Order: sequence, then C-alpha cells, then structure tokens
Amino acid sequence: MSCAEAIDNPDELVTSDNPEHPANLIPSLCAKFWTLGWVTGTGGGCSIREDDLVYIAPSGVQKELMKPSDIYVLSLAAQEPTLKNRTYLRSPPCYKPSQCTPLFLAAFTKRGAGCCIHTHSHWAVLVTLILETSTPAGGDPKLFEINNIEQIKGFGKGYGKQGNLGYHDTLRIPVIENTAHEEDLTEFLEEAMDKYPDTYAVLVRRHGVYVWGDNVHKAKTQCESLDYLFQLAVEMKQLGIPWLSDIPVVNPKRS
Amino acid sequence: MSCAEAIDNPDELVTSDNPEHPANLIPSLCAKFWTLGWVTGTGGGCSIREDDLVYIAPSGVQKELMKPSDIYVLSLAAQEPTLKNRTYLRSPPCYKPSQCTPLFLAAFTKRGAGCCIHTHSHWAVLVTLILETSTPAGGDPKLFEINNIEQIKGFGKGYGKQGNLGYHDTLRIPVIENTAHEEDLTEFLEEAMDKYPDTYAVLVRRHGVYVWGDNVHKAKTQCESLDYLFQLAVEMKQLGIPWLSDIPVVNPKRS
Amino acid sequence: MSCAEAIDNPDELVTSDNPEHPANLIPSLCAKFWTLGWVTGTGGGCSIREDDLVYIAPSGVQKELMKPSDIYVLSLAAQEPTLKNRTYLRSPPCYKPSQCTPLFLAAFTKRGAGCCIHTHSHWAVLVTLILETSTPAGGDPKLFEINNIEQIKGFGKGYGKQGNLGYHDTLRIPVIENTAHEEDLTEFLEEAMDKYPDTYAVLVRRHGVYVWGDNVHKAKTQCESLDYLFQLAVEMKQLGIPWLSDIPVVNPKRS
Amino acid sequence: MSCAEAIDNPDELVTSDNPEHPANLIPSLCAKFWTLGWVTGTGGGCSIREDDLVYIAPSGVQKELMKPSDIYVLSLAAQEPTLKNRTYLRSPPCYKPSQCTPLFLAAFTKRGAGCCIHTHSHWAVLVTLILETSTPAGGDPKLFEINNIEQIKGFGKGYGKQGNLGYHDTLRIPVIENTAHEEDLTEFLEEAMDKYPDTYAVLVRRHGVYVWGDNVHKAKTQCESLDYLFQLAVEMKQLGIPWLSDIPVVNPKRS
Repeated sequence: MSCAEAIDNPDELVTSDNPEHPANLIPSLCAKFWTLGWVTGTGGGCSIREDDLVYIAPSGVQKELMKPSDIYVLSLAAQEPTLKNRTYLRSPPCYKPSQCTPLFLAAFTKRGAGCCIHTHSHWAVLVTLILETSTPAGGDPKLFEINNIEQIKGFGKGYGKQGNLGYHDTLRIPVIENTAHEEDLTEFLEEAMDKYPDTYAVLVRRHGVYVWGDNVHKAKTQCESLDYLFQLAVEMKQLGIPWLSDIPVVNPKRS
Repeated sequence: MSCAEAIDNPDELVTSDNPEHPANLIPSLCAKFWTLGWVTGTGGGCSIREDDLVYIAPSGVQKELMKPSDIYVLSLAAQEPTLKNRTYLRSPPCYKPSQCTPLFLAAFTKRGAGCCIHTHSHWAVLVTLILETSTPAGGDPKLFEINNIEQIKGFGKGYGKQGNLGYHDTLRIPVIENTAHEEDLTEFLEEAMDKYPDTYAVLVRRHGVYVWGDNVHKAKTQCESLDYLFQLAVEMKQLGIPWLSDIPVVNPKRS
Repeated sequence: MSCAEAIDNPDELVTSDNPEHPANLIPSLCAKFWTLGWVTGTGGGCSIREDDLVYIAPSGVQKELMKPSDIYVLSLAAQEPTLKNRTYLRSPPCYKPSQCTPLFLAAFTKRGAGCCIHTHSHWAVLVTLILETSTPAGGDPKLFEINNIEQIKGFGKGYGKQGNLGYHDTLRIPVIENTAHEEDLTEFLEEAMDKYPDTYAVLVRRHGVYVWGDNVHKAKTQCESLDYLFQLAVEMKQLGIPWLSDIPVVNPKRS
Repeated sequence: MSCAEAIDNPDELVTSDNPEHPANLIPSLCAKFWTLGWVTGTGGGCSIREDDLVYIAPSGVQKELMKPSDIYVLSLAAQEPTLKNRTYLRSPPCYKPSQCTPLFLAAFTKRGAGCCIHTHSHWAVLVTLILETSTPAGGDPKLFEINNIEQIKGFGKGYGKQGNLGYHDTLRIPVIENTAHEEDLTEFLEEAMDKYPDTYAVLVRRHGVYVWGDNVHKAKTQCESLDYLFQLAVEMKQLGIPWLSDIPVVNPKRS
C-alpha cells in the first residue's frame, strides 16, 4: 500500500491481522512496559519506524489499554527539516500527538533507528538523582558509566559498528537536563547524540530515559538491559559498591 | 433507565454488557489495583459516579475477586446533606456498605469528581511515616511536597482549572491524621479539601491515600502517578536526596 | 457424599466442577501465593477443612502447578489425639504427605479454623531476623508487635470473639524457634496458641509464618494483611521508624 | 523416534503436542523466568537433557517470546570430549547457538543433570558483589555460605547422595570470576564442580548463576530456592544481619 492510497483511507495504515504490524505491536509492547513500571499514569511511550512511515502512541493515553486505532502515523519524507510542524498521514479521532514525537524522530533521522522507547522507570530517574547529588570529585554528573557487568553485553558497539560491547567495556549513557516542555528536549538530545555518537540511549534528569535500536527487538532488549543496569546501579549505591571498577581480565587456561 | 425503574428492579443498575459500565469497571479496576498492592486483604476500594448515581465496592470483600453483583448503588440526590444516613437504590445481598462511602461522596459532592480511589499502598503509608518522624525543622508534617520530577505533570492544576501542573511546579498533598473509625475521617478530609482546594488527593497518616479525578481515566492516572511519586520519595529518602530542590530552568537554545 | 462412599472411590473426594471446592481452591490459591513469593521452590502450602474433612497440598510439589488430583484428604474424626499416625481417606499416587500436616491440624482442632496457610515470605523471615538480632533492651525477641497502622483492622479480635481489631490496638504475633524437622514445630505452635489465645498466626524464626482463619476468606485476607504489615515493618526498620508508637486518638469534631 | 530418523527431518525433534516435551517446556519456563527477572534482555537461558538428547534455547532471543521452533538439539554421544566443536541434530533457521552451551553440557556430562538454568538475577549478581567488596577478614570471597534458613532444605545433599540438606546445614555455592567470553567460563565451572562436588550451582561474579538438577522439577525448584536465598542474603546485608549464625538446635519436648 502506498502513502497516497493510505491518505485516501488512513485507517488502513493501522489495520492489520499481523501481530508484528507496528499498530498492533505498539499497544502490546506498551501493555508489557506498563507491567514493568516504565509507562505509569500515561507517562512514557513507544514509536516504531518502518521505512518512511512512523507509528506513534498518542499523548495522555493509559498505555496498558491502548488500541491500534489510537496510533498516529506520519511520513518522514513529508516533514520539515526542523520537525517542528508535523503533518500526520493518520490521526486518531480523540487524542493529541505525543510531546515525545520530535525526540522519537531524532532517533529515526539521526541514527536510522527502527524503534525508540521512552520510559519513566524509577531506576532511570534515581540514577540521574544519584549523579546529581553525589558524583564524586572529578566525576561527571552528566554521564552514567558502568563496567564489568555481564549485562553490558546487551548493547551494540554503536551506530554503524558491528558487534556488541564486551564485559570489560564501559557503557556510557549521557544525561541531559530536563526542560519544562518535553519537545524542548529535542535539541539537547541531538547534542548528546553528537557528543556520544555510539550511545543507544540518553537519560533525562528527573524524568526518565530514551532508548533506541535498529529494530524493535534491539530497542526492547537494549531498554530491558539498561533498566536492569540502572536497578543494579541503585542497589550497588545503597550497598556502597562503586559503578566503575578495575577487574583483572581472566584468561582461559587451555586454548 | 430512570431511578424509578431501577428501584423496581435494582439489579438492573449493576447489569450491563458494556465493560465501561461502572458495575463492570469497579471489579476490573480493583483486580488491577490488587496486583499493584493497593487493596491488600480487603483494604482500600473504589467508587464511580455517573451523573446522580454512585457505584461503590462493598466492605470486606477480596478486591481481586469482586463481581458486578457485589456493587452498591446510591443516588446523590436522595442523600441527606450530612451524608450520615444513606439510602441505597441497590444493595448486594450479603455485604455491608463500605466505611469509605462518606469519603467517596465528599469527593463527588465537594469536587464534582467522577471517580475516587482509596489505596493502602505501602508507599503512601511510608511517606506519612517519614513526614511524622523526620520532618526537618520548619517543615510541615501535614504536607507532602515534591517538585522537579517529570511525573508531576500527571496532575491537573486543580478543580475548575484548565491544564496540568508543570515540571517545576510543586505538587502538594495534605496529610490528615487517622481516626479509629474510617467514617470519622470525612470531616478532616473535607477540611483538607477546603484548605488545599487544588489538590486531587489527601494522604491519611499510617493508613493510605484518597485520590480522585473528573472521570475514571483521570482518577486512575493521577493515582498511578502519585503512587509512583510516593515510591520515588521513599527511595530518595533512603538515598539522602531531598524531595524539594531548586533546579534552574533550562531554556531551549533555538526557538 | 459420605466418607464411607468416598473410601470406596477416594478420587471423588477431589473431583468437582465447583471452583469453590477445596480440591480446586487449594491449587488456585497456591498459584496466587506463588506469584506473591509466599511458596517459592515447593516451600509453604495451604490446607482447607470442611466439617470433618481436611484437604492438604502434598509435599515437594511446585505450588503454582498443582492439580486437584494432587490433594490429600483425611478425616479429623479418624485421627489419634496426638495426630502422629495419620490415616488418609485419599492419597495422590506419587507424592508424600506434607510435613506441615500436624501444624495445619493444630489450627483446625485447637482453633476450629477452616483454612490454614503457611508461607516462606521474605518479609516474615526478615521480621524474625530483626527481632533476633536487634530487639531493644526490655523487648521480647519472641513477639512481633505493631500498632497504629490501619491494616491491623484486617484481623479478628480472637478465637470466639466478635469483631476486628481497631486502629489503635496492638497486633501481637508470637515467634517460635525453628526445629530441624517441621513436624516437631507442632508442640511449640500449640504452646504459642495457648499463650496467645487470640492470635491468628504464629511466626517461625528463619522459616516463615502460619496463618489461619475461620474460613478460606478470613485466612487469606489475614495472611495478606500480615504480609503487608511484615513488609511495612521491614521498611520501617530500614528507615529507623519504630513499630510501636503512642499516637493520640483523634476524635471527630461533630457527632 | 531415533536420532537417525530425526536427522532426516530434524524439525520433528522439536514438534510435540505434549506440554512436557523439552521443546515446549523450555519456552514456557523461559517466559516464567522472564517475569521473575532472571532472563532480562536476552540474558540467561535454559537447557534440558533427555537421555542422549540436549535441547537448548538459542542466543540473543527474547526469552519470553521463544517458540519450540527456536530450539537447538544436539546429541551428547556425538560430541567431542572437549565439547569445543559441536554438531547439532537440529538448528533453527535464523539464530546462533548459545554461548552457554558448553556450560550446560558440563552439568549434563559431569553431573548427570537433566536440566540446567542460567540466570542474570540481580540478587545473584549483588551477592557476588557483596562478597567481592566486603568479605570479612578470614572469609572467602569465592564462596557464598548461608545456614539456619528453612529454605536451605530445598537443595539435595549432593550428586549421587540421597535426601536434602537440613535446616542447620550450611549451603555452599562457589563463585567463579567472569571471563570476557562466556564459553571460557567452562573450565572454571568444571573446576568449581570438582572442588565442590556436592553443589548444584555455581555463581559467576558480576554475571549471574548456573543451577542444575537431576530433572526439570529439581533444577527449577533449586533455582527458585537459591534466588530466594540470594534475595534474603542481600536484605540481611542491608539490615546488618550475618549470613552464617550459630543457632542452638531445638529439640521436641515429647517423643
């Protein structure tokens, strides 16, 4: 189906029997994210890109109750470069577009991502609060760093690079300051993407995290891995265990 | 269906194929609240108002097992102003009315709410205990305050006002002392509503929280957002991070 | 169906279309308890008494996977007074009787309970550990006490008494020391029942808790309320808030 | 069905209507483990052995979404002694074999296990971090030890021994250091098995745990019991309660 046809009957863009269709996948993912505490009380969201088409959950909806007919669709090609004035191929009748939209679009246009997830996870917020209030002298409150944890292998090495991080690699996630209006985060998110070209996520202070990936599978598993690491980091802090360590490499004896 | 007809056959008031009917919605919401730890061991509850009719879960029922036929119905118009002696249009055969009833009615009559939720959430109780035992000098143990957290945007500005709180606004939830009999809380809840006319919730010390909203959607999402903030506040306390902070406003560079 | 008939075809004792039949209820309750973390790794269990018949989950079964055909049935009338040598009306083909059996029977015979639940809940174990290691001078490490928490109202006043505890009442749960063999706990459980005739629960140090009630509803809601209070007590300990307090009674202004 | 037939049509090895067939059981177990937080973001896994055949979840799959057709099958008889170059009887079309494979095989060949589970549970990782950073003088940071907790009874006494550990026995789980490549853990896992022949589990520092058992039932219930003990151990650490204690034996008065 081409976009031209879709514009004649936009509801076809969100109507499919295939559970892997973005309009079906976004509601089922968001229901799962609700049980994980990532999208509490309409906070957070999720967007999927397929080629030129972007599917986005609306603003203000209870994420565990979303339906395919609630989904917005827009065409990347039809957007202005600044992404400020957006035209939607399909809009649900009674919602408003998500304020997260330009942030999702940044992941799609600047990183070629296929999916972007935004959570308000407690662990993400607590990590930014810990960095804000107790970064040791010489540390950077605008950077979450952790190494020598197996789950770090859940992340790709970076945009355009092959393979995943290793156990001894340091995972670095930049932290940007929150703004009064979510759309205003966009330029700071893009700035962080420029400064840390390999990152697949950006933390937002006192707010949550944006995580993306080449496709839905990678975005979701990177988001899960990151939430796991944020939770571990908070628990390590409570037990007085540092996030960065200097662990000797263990070599196999035979080989 | 008019009330007159309903009184002839009261069970019709709680019989509907529509999952959005209050008699169906209260059981499904309460089952969800049970999984969230809000209505443990028959504690807590939920009431919905549609126009003049009020639907209320009974006392002493296991909230995750409730059925539409367990629901009480009363007419606001038929109640005495003091709400002390209530007449029910429909009563289930083997339960007692909830002691929360006059508190729910206060939200409906004084604030025009469409739904009121009462939880015994651990986080709500712990916040009131922290305020009781460690309010710093000059602080008010009868007021929960938090600011500069994104999830605060989940609350309306107040009764009769348009729009929601902003990121930098301070969310204020009054705390009332618990009474031996739950019905006796009513006058203190109403007093708190008068003192804090914009609040959508009142904490009850060592007991839980009452949260309301213009409709079911708003009551539920405000209750979720508040529980999220209570949990975050307890975790911040454990990490030594204050609930109130003075965060500089971040302005977008371009616009 | 009489017991005589049942002995001819014991499987009829556990075969029913009624979801409220004990042989159906025990598996569905245990599956729920598994999700609550009460019966991890075959630990814990549940027993229901209907008149003279007692239904018991077997030993060593994964509690979330239990089937009605796994249930043991015995007749109280047919047991010896010491309950040491028990004869079963119905035994499942490939399990062993639960070591908890004489403890369940104590609740049925000494307190007329209709249901008894045994959990290994973390919170119960942690409460006994806190009492063991940090009971203040003058306190009793063999008694859990808490007052001035609303959820205390979830408990009856005691065996043969009408009504429930009030908000200002102190809930007291005796703690017995664990024994190498679970059956050997029986005499100490009975001793605690004699010393605290009003209690509906006994904690077992470094092990868990036994909770009972007049019927399934009361046993389950008392067990949920108690687990809520144990969790709250651990969290209060972590925040330095005492379990017992002297809260002034708040009287309603009008009435 | 013999292996020879299977090689003609390998998909038959993973096709069965029986929910207890390993190709059906691994996906349903992994979905359960996902909800327990054991296999977050493709981490962790599970393998089942039936006689000579070994069924293994693939690498990099979302564990709660696995299907029987995703399962690898190999024959133990056909493997080289070093297990380095493995030949699969059946491989799914679009996955890679799990790096955990040689570790699972070690449990099957060295201990005759019927099932091996690998989790990335937070509690397991935190226990290894606590041992690394705060083992008291004289303690061994390469050994987790706990005693006098009822749940310890959930473990068998050891390979080839009858019966389970007792309440007063000390459960000992060796800790090995993590390696950059998961396959390289194999020799250290085997070394730990040799040094602690009775253990049913090995912790991997900053990584997770491997747990096995004679069959699926025992592997799962031992894994659950261990995760329960790891969680309790972390909570005990936070409350300042030691993992090892000297509790007097309580003897029954009559008998």
